[in-house]
Amino acid sequence: MELYGGVEAGGTKFVCAIGTSPEDIRAEVRFPTTEPRETLAKTVEFFRQYMVKNNARLTAIGVGSFGPLDLNPSSPNFGKITTTPKSGWAFTPLVQTLQDGTGVPVFLDTDVNAAALGEGTWGAAKGLKDYMYITIGTGIGGGLIINGMPHHGLVHPEMGHIRLIHDQKADPFVGICPFHGDCFEGLASGPALQARLGKPAESVPAYHPIWELEAEYIALALNDFICVVSPQRIILGGGVMQQTHLFPMIRVKVQQFLNRYIFASQILERIDEYIVPPALGNRAGVMGAIALAKLRVEG
Amino acid sequence: MELYGGVEAGGTKFVCAIGTSPEDIRAEVRFPTTEPRETLAKTVEFFRQYMVKNNARLTAIGVGSFGPLDLNPSSPNFGKITTTPKSGWAFTPLVQTLQDGTGVPVFLDTDVNAAALGEGTWGAAKGLKDYMYITIGTGIGGGLIINGMPHHGLVHPEMGHIRLIHDQKADPFVGICPFHGDCFEGLASGPALQARLGKPAESVPAYHPIWELEAEYIALALNDFICVVSPQRIILGGGVMQQTHLFPMIRVKVQQFLNRYIFASQILERIDEYIVPPALGNRAGVMGAIALAKLRVEG
Ligand SMILES: Nc1ncnc2c1ncn2[C@@H]1O[C@H](COP(=O)(O)OP(=O)(O)O)[C@@H](O)[C@H]1O
Ligand SMILES: Nc1ncnc2c1ncn2[C@@H]1O[C@H](COP(=O)(O)OP(=O)(O)O)[C@@H](O)[C@H]1O
Ligand SMILES: [Zn+2]
Ligand SMILES: [Zn+2]
Repeated sequence: MELYGGVEAGGTKFVCAIGTSPEDIRAEVRFPTTEPRETLAKTVEFFRQYMVKNNARLTAIGVGSFGPLDLNPSSPNFGKITTTPKSGWAFTPLVQTLQDGTGVPVFLDTDVNAAALGEGTWGAAKGLKDYMYITIGTGIGGGLIINGMPHHGLVHPEMGHIRLIHDQKADPFVGICPFHGDCFEGLASGPALQARLGKPAESVPAYHPIWELEAEYIALALNDFICVVSPQRIILGGGVMQQTHLFPMIRVKVQQFLNRYIFASQILERIDEYIVPPALGNRAGVMGAIALAKLRVEG
Repeated sequence: MELYGGVEAGGTKFVCAIGTSPEDIRAEVRFPTTEPRETLAKTVEFFRQYMVKNNARLTAIGVGSFGPLDLNPSSPNFGKITTTPKSGWAFTPLVQTLQDGTGVPVFLDTDVNAAALGEGTWGAAKGLKDYMYITIGTGIGGGLIINGMPHHGLVHPEMGHIRLIHDQKADPFVGICPFHGDCFEGLASGPALQARLGKPAESVPAYHPIWELEAEYIALALNDFICVVSPQRIILGGGVMQQTHLFPMIRVKVQQFLNRYIFASQILERIDEYIVPPALGNRAGVMGAIALAKLRVEG
C-alpha cells in the first residue's frame, strides 16, 4: 500500500496529513497560515520528520490550495499561486518549495478540485465520473471532476464569480466582491451574509429571512451549473452549508428554476441524492489532497 | 483512409454527407425535416444508395441531432431523441433506425457537441482540448469538449437555459422560453429578437439598438461559461452570429464583466482569438457529425 502526504493549503490554516485513506491517517498537523516562507517551512518539516522518525518513504504529496493557481505544466509560473490578494503570497512557488524541501514528488490542484476528488474517492461522490464540489465559506469556489479527472481548461474554474439575477428591491445589498460587486460570491459568501447582518451568519437562527435569500442565490447558481456542465451530483460544503436547513430549500428551488426541463430522475425524483453535503467532514480538504496524489500516481 | 457518413439532424432541415474531411466530400444531400419515419427513411436511402452504387463501405455514421437526447448507453432510451416538443419526434429511436437501415455503426451526439468536434478537428479550435461551441439561432445551445471528448455528464449540457441578469427597465420583454421565460434562450435567441422587433432580426440594420442589448446578454452568458468551465476558446455560431459586428461588442463586454479577474493573456490581451466565429461555414454541422464518427472509431 503506497503512503501519501496531503496538504490542505487554506487562506487561514494549513492541514497536513500522511496516510492511505480516511481510515488510515498516520499523522496530522494543523497550523495557521502566516507568511509563505514560514508556513511552507513548517509543512516541509512535518513531512521530513515523519519520514526520518519512521524510516518511511512517501510516494507523493498532494496539495489542494487556495488560488488562483497556475496549473499549466508548460507555463513559467507552473505550480505557483499567482495573483492572490493575500499579502505576501502572490507568485509563491508551492510545488517547487515543497518538492525541493521533501524530496518527494508534489502534485498541485485547487482546494475545491482536491475536495471534490476526496469525495469521489471515499465520500459523497463515490462511483461517479462527472460531479462538482462547491464550497460556500469565506469565498465561493467550485471543483469540477470530468471523467474522473480534475478539470482545468484555460486556467481553472472560478465558479463563485458567475452573475446572478439580483432583485435590488428584495435585496438592496451591493455585494462584496472587489472585482464584480454582486457576483455569486459577492452576494452569497459568508462575509456577504455578515455584511448584511452586522454579525457572523452562524449567529442568526434558522428562521431568519436571510436563509431564504441565501437559498435562492445558491439555487440560481446551481441552476446555471446544471445547465452548463450537467453534473451527475453536486456536493455543497463550506462553513455556510453547516446551516443544513438550507439543503431542502435549495433542492426545491432548483427544481422550480429548472421547471422539469432537464429530464432526469436524479433531479425530478431523487434530488435529495443529487444535491448533497460532503461526507468527509473536517478532513475533506486534506483527504482530497491525498486523493489527488493517489490519482496522479495510480491513475 | 476510412470513409464516414455524417448526419446533421436539425429541427428544420437534415444534411447528410459522406467523406473523410471538409476537402473530401464524396456526396451530400439536404432536405426539410418532416415527420420522423419519412425523414429517417430518406436518410437511410441516401447512405444505402451511395454504398450500392459505389460498392463502398462506410466505417461509421455520426449523427449530430437536436435534442434532448438520451446518450446514456445503459438507459432503455439510449440513442433516442427524448422529450422534444417537436411534433411526432418525442422518443424517436435515431440510432436504432439508422443502424438497422444502413447496416453501419451509428454514433449519436448533440448537434452542438458535433459542431464543436468538427471545429476542433478541422476548424476554429484545431489543436485545443477544452473548448466550447455555442449556437445562437432558433434556439441557444452549447457543446462542450473536455480533454478532446464531447462532454455529457448526467444528461448533456443545456447552456441556453442559464438565467441572466435582466434589467426590466432597459428591456421589459418577458422572454419566450416556454419553460423559463427570460432564460438566455428566452431573451437572446433569434425568435426572441423577432418577438421584440416584430420582424426577423436579419431585417434590421447593424446600428439598431437591439444589437447592443443582444451583445450584453451573450457576454453575460459567456462570463458565466468562462467562470464555470474555463474553456480554452469559445466559438459562437448560429444564424444570429452572422451579425459579425456582434463579435467586437461581445469581446469588450466579456472583458468588462470579468474585470481582469481571470489572469490569462487569452482573455486580457488576445480576446480576438478567444471568442471566435466557426471556420467550417454551412457545413459545420454535417462535418461535425463526420468528426464524431471518426473520433469514435479512431479515438
Ligand atoms: N455554522 C455556520 N453557519 C453559517 N455560516 C457559517 C457557519 N460557520 C462558518 N460560517 C461562515 O463561513 C465563513 C467561513 O467559511 P469556512 O468554509 O468555514 O472557511 P474558509 O472558507 O475560510 O475555508 C465565514 O464567513 C463564517 O461566517
Ligand atoms: N443574418 C442574420 N442576422 C440575424 N439573425 C439571423 C440571421 N440569420 C438568421 N437569423 C435568425 O436566426 C434564427 C435561425 O437560426 P439558424 O442558426 O439559422 O437555424 P437553426 O437554429 O434553426 O438551425 C432565426 O430566428 C433567424 O431570424
Ligand atoms: Zn466576483
Ligand atoms: Zn429556458
